[in-house]
Amino acid sequence: MPGQSVGVVESRRAHFDQALHLRSGGVLPAYDLVYETYGTLNAAKSNAILVCHALSGHHHVAGHYADQPDNVGWWDNIVGPGRPLDTDRFFVVGVNNPGGCHGSTGPSSLNPATGKPWGADFPMVAVIDWVHAQARLADLLGIDSWAVIMGGSLGGMQALRWSVTYPERVRNAIVIAAAPKLSAQNIAFNDVARQAILTDPDFHGGNYYEHNTRPVRGLRLARMLGHITYLSDDQMGEKFGRELRNSAFSFGFGVEFEVESYLRHQGDKFAGYFDANTYLLMTKALDYFDPAREDNGNLTATMARSKANFLCVSFSTDWRFSPARSKEMVAALLANGRDVSYAEISLNFGHDSFLMDDAHYHGVIDAYLRNIKL
Amino acid sequence: MPGQSVGVVESRRAHFDQALHLRSGGVLPAYDLVYETYGTLNAAKSNAILVCHALSGHHHVAGHYADQPDNVGWWDNIVGPGRPLDTDRFFVVGVNNPGGCHGSTGPSSLNPATGKPWGADFPMVAVIDWVHAQARLADLLGIDSWAVIMGGSLGGMQALRWSVTYPERVRNAIVIAAAPKLSAQNIAFNDVARQAILTDPDFHGGNYYEHNTRPVRGLRLARMLGHITYLSDDQMGEKFGRELRNSAFSFGFGVEFEVESYLRHQGDKFAGYFDANTYLLMTKALDYFDPAREDNGNLTATMARSKANFLCVSFSTDWRFSPARSKEMVAALLANGRDVSYAEISLNFGHDSFLMDDAHYHGVIDAYLRNIKL
Repeated sequence: MPGQSVGVVESRRAHFDQALHLRSGGVLPAYDLVYETYGTLNAAKSNAILVCHALSGHHHVAGHYADQPDNVGWWDNIVGPGRPLDTDRFFVVGVNNPGGCHGSTGPSSLNPATGKPWGADFPMVAVIDWVHAQARLADLLGIDSWAVIMGGSLGGMQALRWSVTYPERVRNAIVIAAAPKLSAQNIAFNDVARQAILTDPDFHGGNYYEHNTRPVRGLRLARMLGHITYLSDDQMGEKFGRELRNSAFSFGFGVEFEVESYLRHQGDKFAGYFDANTYLLMTKALDYFDPAREDNGNLTATMARSKANFLCVSFSTDWRFSPARSKEMVAALLANGRDVSYAEISLNFGHDSFLMDDAHYHGVIDAYLRNIKL
Repeated sequence: MPGQSVGVVESRRAHFDQALHLRSGGVLPAYDLVYETYGTLNAAKSNAILVCHALSGHHHVAGHYADQPDNVGWWDNIVGPGRPLDTDRFFVVGVNNPGGCHGSTGPSSLNPATGKPWGADFPMVAVIDWVHAQARLADLLGIDSWAVIMGGSLGGMQALRWSVTYPERVRNAIVIAAAPKLSAQNIAFNDVARQAILTDPDFHGGNYYEHNTRPVRGLRLARMLGHITYLSDDQMGEKFGRELRNSAFSFGFGVEFEVESYLRHQGDKFAGYFDANTYLLMTKALDYFDPAREDNGNLTATMARSKANFLCVSFSTDWRFSPARSKEMVAALLANGRDVSYAEISLNFGHDSFLMDDAHYHGVIDAYLRNIKL
């Protein structure tokens, strides 16, 4: 990894008094957003990059906190002086979306109407709601137009949504390992994960905060399942194969194969800190995402509203959002004569490839960003 | 579907007093097997076909019961006069494996040592144990050598195992939609399913029978997840797409998309009749299956012990056990100079294709069986 980390960072909190009217018909009367920035906004305010997070991500994109040197941002490998999102040149913004569980207003926040956690009463949020909330943050930061909005997976969907909802405010969109809408199989996996949470007796209809418990079992299962879909079959085979935890079969229901140990550990870790209601909301936002629905399914008509230049990136072993799904977006952009670059990267890490530090992958992002005029 | 169903059938029960010593070190002191037969065993006893069942299958392969006209065997479409498993020519046997929940001795049976259901004390069973149990049934039926042993998925694994464990007793093996061992991803999916059951508060460590309850939530999740892996992405897309249950989004956690309705229904139905302990045992038998383990992973050395002719069949859209997995078996057989036929069938039903009534698929089976000399 060439370049350097941005080093010590701080998160900030912005309060918004103006109600956010949501796609679901719900309303957030007021809300907080936590965010971080790296680099310096130039005088023309033309060098801002918004990094949107995916299902389990947040605002802490890069660097580390002074008192938590090991708490490194989730995309630290791509942000910093000399890195593709070069903070000597760009002003990079990360924000936790409404409905999240990392500081922005979400289901575990206090509902001002009741003085208790929102819980099940937190309204359903959609990608377009996040875009509107992020637009208000841009207003606050004095950013009329983003040089780039980018993200992987659900983060890439936000970049796509921005480009058609606020076409004047996005000059470039980098959409990585994403799709213009979920497939039936994608929705099916999400539904199993949700059912695991919803049927956990500790879920208490979403109001588990008041019961001093959490649906840990369900959340753990949801994460274990999710993890299988983030990795490629090949990678799992290379990483774990059929390696046994012990030298011989134990013929019990404890950990037998290393892959079980890995998955259960991932599930336990995640269930220890993530909020189940947020998980439900994020997976529903994924399911609902389908900007072309407003155009009777005609994605070309939808993308006609965008004015951004695009870079779409997919990964050869991503079976969650395969290269074919990226090509749907590329085709719709090309049909509109838009300026679109496309790269299909050969990487063995499945959907999670978008988080990896790979020279070819980062080289593509770097080259694209170097060519942007600020 | 040409040909006819076998019509009214009856299941039988055989009791075995001889202890079955299991791969896990456990012992079944005595056990029952329920089975069905279709057609007539010829005088030379040379026309017998054993059909082995997969994870959720059983002995009721074909026909229907006199008092249950709608209870049709799970592979009825391939068995009967004029069908590929032509009962005018062959004597076809279906048997429920030990550990099952359809009549053969399993976790819900009474443990003679305690007078209570076996529950968690039921020993872990492996594919080779089923093969030994089936061999004793063959002895009972007077079948020294099977013309054919066949099955799909876990059923195909039994055919493979038979061919190397009792090479003198299998003249032909038809291995459909199977693999010589599970991949890390296969094991991972199984482990999530098992964790759903094991962590269900109604599981009671496997002794839920005594608590007058069943781990319905966990079993339902396991089946929902399993179903996703049985179907192809394409098929789910064609069958359900992003069709909504209602005309507009409901923005709730009820059924939103048709695919959710389908999966939840499948989960509910299965959880209503299947035994969770059997589900655990069957998935573990899948995980453990790896006959080449006895030969340090050298499948060619393993298959050298077989004397059967083989037909291996795979399906283009099966991502659970893809065509590449069948080719591993074919390669090991070819390396031994064995007589092996291989067909990769283009069918859109994923792993479940092996249950489908497709002219090309059934034509391949039919042609193979017609060429067998009895």
